[in-house]
Amino acid sequence: MRRLKTLALVGVGLIGGSFAMGLRRAGIAPRIVGFDRDRGALESAASLGVIDTAAESVSEAVKGADLVVIAVPVRSVGPVLHDVALAMEADAVVTDVGSTKAEVVRVAREELRERFPRFVPGHPIAGRETSGVESALVDLFRGARVVLTPTDKTAPDAIETVRGAWEAVGAKVATADAEEHDRIFAAVSHLPHILSFALVSEIASRDNAAELLGFAAGGFRDFTRIAASSPQMWRDIALQNREALLAELERYQARLAVFRELIERGEASGLERLMQEARTTRTNWAAGGKRPTSNE
Amino acid sequence: MRRLKTLALVGVGLIGGSFAMGLRRAGIAPRIVGFDRDRGALESAASLGVIDTAAESVSEAVKGADLVVIAVPVRSVGPVLHDVALAMEADAVVTDVGSTKAEVVRVAREELRERFPRFVPGHPIAGRETSGVESALVDLFRGARVVLTPTDKTAPDAIETVRGAWEAVGAKVATADAEEHDRIFAAVSHLPHILSFALVSEIASRDNAAELLGFAAGGFRDFTRIAASSPQMWRDIALQNREALLAELERYQARLAVFRELIERGEASGLERLMQEARTTRTNWAAGGKRPTSNE
Repeated sequence: MRRLKTLALVGVGLIGGSFAMGLRRAGIAPRIVGFDRDRGALESAASLGVIDTAAESVSEAVKGADLVVIAVPVRSVGPVLHDVALAMEADAVVTDVGSTKAEVVRVAREELRERFPRFVPGHPIAGRETSGVESALVDLFRGARVVLTPTDKTAPDAIETVRGAWEAVGAKVATADAEEHDRIFAAVSHLPHILSFALVSEIASRDNAAELLGFAAGGFRDFTRIAASSPQMWRDIALQNREALLAELERYQARLAVFRELIERGEASGLERLMQEARTTRTNWAAGGKRPTSNE
Repeated sequence: MRRLKTLALVGVGLIGGSFAMGLRRAGIAPRIVGFDRDRGALESAASLGVIDTAAESVSEAVKGADLVVIAVPVRSVGPVLHDVALAMEADAVVTDVGSTKAEVVRVAREELRERFPRFVPGHPIAGRETSGVESALVDLFRGARVVLTPTDKTAPDAIETVRGAWEAVGAKVATADAEEHDRIFAAVSHLPHILSFALVSEIASRDNAAELLGFAAGGFRDFTRIAASSPQMWRDIALQNREALLAELERYQARLAVFRELIERGEASGLERLMQEARTTRTNWAAGGKRPTSNE
């Protein structure tokens, strides 16, 4: 990809920090200006060398940058885009890393107006259990998938710039329609998070929670690992992707009711058949070279 | 614990095989006679040296043994106990390794009759993703918990023999009432398995399952790992522990409905509060020295 002059990084957490480190190593981001509302995070990013310059505002970070990466929680993308719109260069490219996309696209259209074609919505499917720039890894995105959800208004050269940046850090880039993206991730990511939170929430509500947890083992550990995720992040994802998530929840509740009925009626063969289908699907998926090393 | 003369192992799979290997290494099971309906498994166990002698029947294995370990799927414990009752020595001790206990106790009472006091129901909370005697590990139970669910009829010396055997292979032994055991495991093990099977089952039922799975990542992987478990085993556990599992399912469905309502109404703070409670509970549990290395 073409060499950038200046990268503006708004939000210097795990994802933004890792992306910046990767771009710098790839030699395509010689100068990196960062901004974060959290002064401590910003200073850490500077002292770790993740960014070269700590800006005082979004506008200051964005001015003169040819690529703007917005790596803040999804609910904050709108306010950041508002400031970006006022300060960005006319031909700069803007992208984000949010886990939901339709709402981001809607907000970007509103905030960026005539600059909207320069915005390429993105979602890197990677993460770690820990957060913050201190946890950033130069190889976080190596082998990870990144989904871009451009619209028919998005400038092709902007898409290519963002695609090239992600490929430069080792990611595999796919594109999808934003609504389609949200439906897919509602099914394979957002719903499992809600289901896992709900299980631990239910157990936590009991008088004998400690006793129950004393007997919890490996199955519980894996099933509930995602219930240790950030409540703020997942609250926002659930609400931003509400419609698709509710549709998934409804489908899931219906399927769970089928399992319940089979158990109530003691229908061994029907129960085994559904479990066998699930096992086959899960086993084939795991064997299919899909060996994710990260959260989403 | 006292040294055994002969251990009879009925069911030479992962659990039974690992237990036998551990007891042999501990030097308290000099002679091990095995039986399995699956001739191939039995021959493997003999050629691997997990058992010394392959018996032709349950009766032949049990005759002369002072400890009988029944390590077969839960639904088969009853038929095995029927044969054990006819052939066991009067002072032999009998135990099992099933994941549900109340139904096993009920069946044991029926089948063993006057020998019932010699039966100590047990549940080692350990396992591996693979099954079969070839996967057996001498250290499978090191640090694992084992729950024994004796009744007020169970002979104290029988309990001590089984406790001693498990401790000899490195396990930590707890005792509980069988119904209480089943309620606990319905909550922390059986329910999560059903929830995980149901999610993959729902996805598997769709036309676009392959597309969806193509975007599944680490959260999905962990949440659904237990959906790759044995359908026969989990069908049986679900039906054997039906009552307790249905009670858990009902509680879970109610909790999930609360999450759904919060999402529908866009109640950010309520949603975050429940997620935060879940996260705290999960994080404290994981930090509490509960570091299971195995399935249940």
